[in-house]
Amino acid sequence: MPRSYDQFCPVARTLDILGDRWTLLIVRDLLLGKSRFAEFEESLEGIPTNVLSERLKVLEAQGIVERSFYSDHPPRAEYRLTRKGKDLHWIVDALAFWGSRYTFDEPAFRQIHADCGHQVSPAWICTGCGETVRPSSVRLEILGEVQGEKS
Amino acid sequence: MPRSYDQFCPVARTLDILGDRWTLLIVRDLLLGKSRFAEFEESLEGIPTNVLSERLKVLEAQGIVERSFYSDHPPRAEYRLTRKGKDLHWIVDALAFWGSRYTFDEPAFRQIHADCGHQVSPAWICTGCGETVRPSSVRLEILGEVQGEKS
Repeated sequence: MPRSYDQFCPVARTLDILGDRWTLLIVRDLLLGKSRFAEFEESLEGIPTNVLSERLKVLEAQGIVERSFYSDHPPRAEYRLTRKGKDLHWIVDALAFWGSRYTFDEPAFRQIHADCGHQVSPAWICTGCGETVRPSSVRLEILGEVQGEKS
Repeated sequence: MPRSYDQFCPVARTLDILGDRWTLLIVRDLLLGKSRFAEFEESLEGIPTNVLSERLKVLEAQGIVERSFYSDHPPRAEYRLTRKGKDLHWIVDALAFWGSRYTFDEPAFRQIHADCGHQVSPAWICTGCGETVRPSSVRLEILGEVQGEKS
């Protein structure tokens, strides 16, 4: 894992887990259904084998992936996202959305609604009133007694 | 900037720009309205001065921040997000959303709708039909002639 930022901030704490080089691309590949070591190696050109092993171990230790064996002789593991891991999709989606818009000279990708073919945009939905909420109307609330605590 | 992943993927290309240690926390602070070098240094405990300078230079070179001077003697710069930079908020929001849910033993933060006080969830909205689109109904479309191109 990266050196912790040691901040009482959900952004920093997420990056404490995912901020290492390659980690979010491994999560991307898991979200796309890749599960085997060789599949990650093929997708992630240039990743050293020991780095891939270490990243998968961290993801497993964090409860983001579960490891099982599809072969005993020789032992071969496969990796699946847990619920906690699947919930990372908004992060990867947001990276893809911004990257589609801003990192190509010509538009190269867009996110579309499979049913009607039009482009989708990220949004916040209120679980209470059901409305689409503008980002400026979203407030980060600090809960309970934890304010000021350092870690 | 980090060493490029050299992938034709909007996630990887976004991380080519933002994947370095500290960069996304600087963007978080810019989104919160911080603009001066000393403010970033205060917020980002432990960041070396030269690293902060370098990160801000990269963000400026990428068109994510604009630099202006609020004092000439001595020269003192301030940094503001451009439109391209402000559009990074979905990435930081997604990191905050996941981190609020999964990186604290006790719930510490939640994102709420300022108008009604209920929790918000990230969602996709279709710009065509206006519907809320489940993530499984979002498709990443590859545009035009670019398929297969390497960079």
